[in-house]
Amino acid sequence: MKRELLKVYAITDRTCMGQDFEKKIEQALQGGVTCLQLREKNMPEEQLIKEAVRIKAICRKYGVPLILNDNCHAALKAGADGVHVGQSDMPVSEIRRLAGAHFLIGATTKTVQQAKQAQAEGADYLGVGAVFPSPTKTDALRITPELLREICHSVTIPAVAIGGIAAENMMTLQDSGIAGVAVVSAVFGAEDVRAAAAQLCRKREEML
Amino acid sequence: MKRELLKVYAITDRTCMGQDFEKKIEQALQGGVTCLQLREKNMPEEQLIKEAVRIKAICRKYGVPLILNDNCHAALKAGADGVHVGQSDMPVSEIRRLAGAHFLIGATTKTVQQAKQAQAEGADYLGVGAVFPSPTKTDALRITPELLREICHSVTIPAVAIGGIAAENMMTLQDSGIAGVAVVSAVFGAEDVRAAAAQLCRKREEML
Repeated sequence: MKRELLKVYAITDRTCMGQDFEKKIEQALQGGVTCLQLREKNMPEEQLIKEAVRIKAICRKYGVPLILNDNCHAALKAGADGVHVGQSDMPVSEIRRLAGAHFLIGATTKTVQQAKQAQAEGADYLGVGAVFPSPTKTDALRITPELLREICHSVTIPAVAIGGIAAENMMTLQDSGIAGVAVVSAVFGAEDVRAAAAQLCRKREEML
Repeated sequence: MKRELLKVYAITDRTCMGQDFEKKIEQALQGGVTCLQLREKNMPEEQLIKEAVRIKAICRKYGVPLILNDNCHAALKAGADGVHVGQSDMPVSEIRRLAGAHFLIGATTKTVQQAKQAQAEGADYLGVGAVFPSPTKTDALRITPELLREICHSVTIPAVAIGGIAAENMMTLQDSGIAGVAVVSAVFGAEDVRAAAAQLCRKREEML
């Protein structure tokens, strides 16, 4: 997967986004996010597929890939570009077998061993965190800066850092080897989603 | 672009495929082709987009990317995975600007200079040929084995060889550095499209 697609990776959160869900997604894309993950934890599959089809059409206008959280089957049905899985979801190797080489697969990893295994099974990128205390995932295990760096350098596929990242603290990740940052509330919790996305993109460019 | 997606790259040709156009495409996918290019030289854009949408749905079942020939606009509208352009089509840099980083862009190149420029402008892969006399493109300039090798090694993006390639002559390309072979009549001109695709895939594996 091209590293530049992971520069600013926005993940949806229905609880913090409220009514204007699709509108806010489009604002984030207008602001310059480079990848979008649709994360729906409590939605029947048929409804998820329909929603993903609509959001894929929005993403396509901006040339931004759409990744679904967890549900590989729904991602394939909806024509999404990929799926992101955790350690307790469908194994990466199984998804790769089902979905072919072009489908993007992301894997959450918290150790060097998990990172190497995800790469060996065919993952395209890693999600690593939580790098800061997260307002949306309060129970997430913290990853130290040293471990983040170690994980990034243990594989050749790119990694995004996740967990409590905002424009204010992003620069501390500068020397970690990450391709970019995954954000939820820093984009979708903002009053002005488009401006927040644009600010994160500017900050990400400063890190280079 | 992942090299494995270019192993056996099939290109449609309506004149040699006849009536069962979409059926033959599905047979080629069943036989194992790793990438499909829809090449329509004489079709109004609206009709092309509709056809591409239908063929994208077939390709998706097999996890195989769909590339459109020439028409970047139709490819984006139809939700195809990419576009392949020649030297006289829209510049690669312009397509990359319009379509974003995830969209696949292939470029036909016949010299080292063209190959380097295509890569610099953001191409994901190269098409290089004709490596043999082609039954479908009789006016194509021949590329010597030495030049093919030189082009492949002048860039880091993968290349497919094209032009008159069949199961019988494929092995002579073994040491050229190509990622795979692009074929038209060797697949779609066969009595049994699925079997022909499967045979090409087996031959391609032998080349490794």
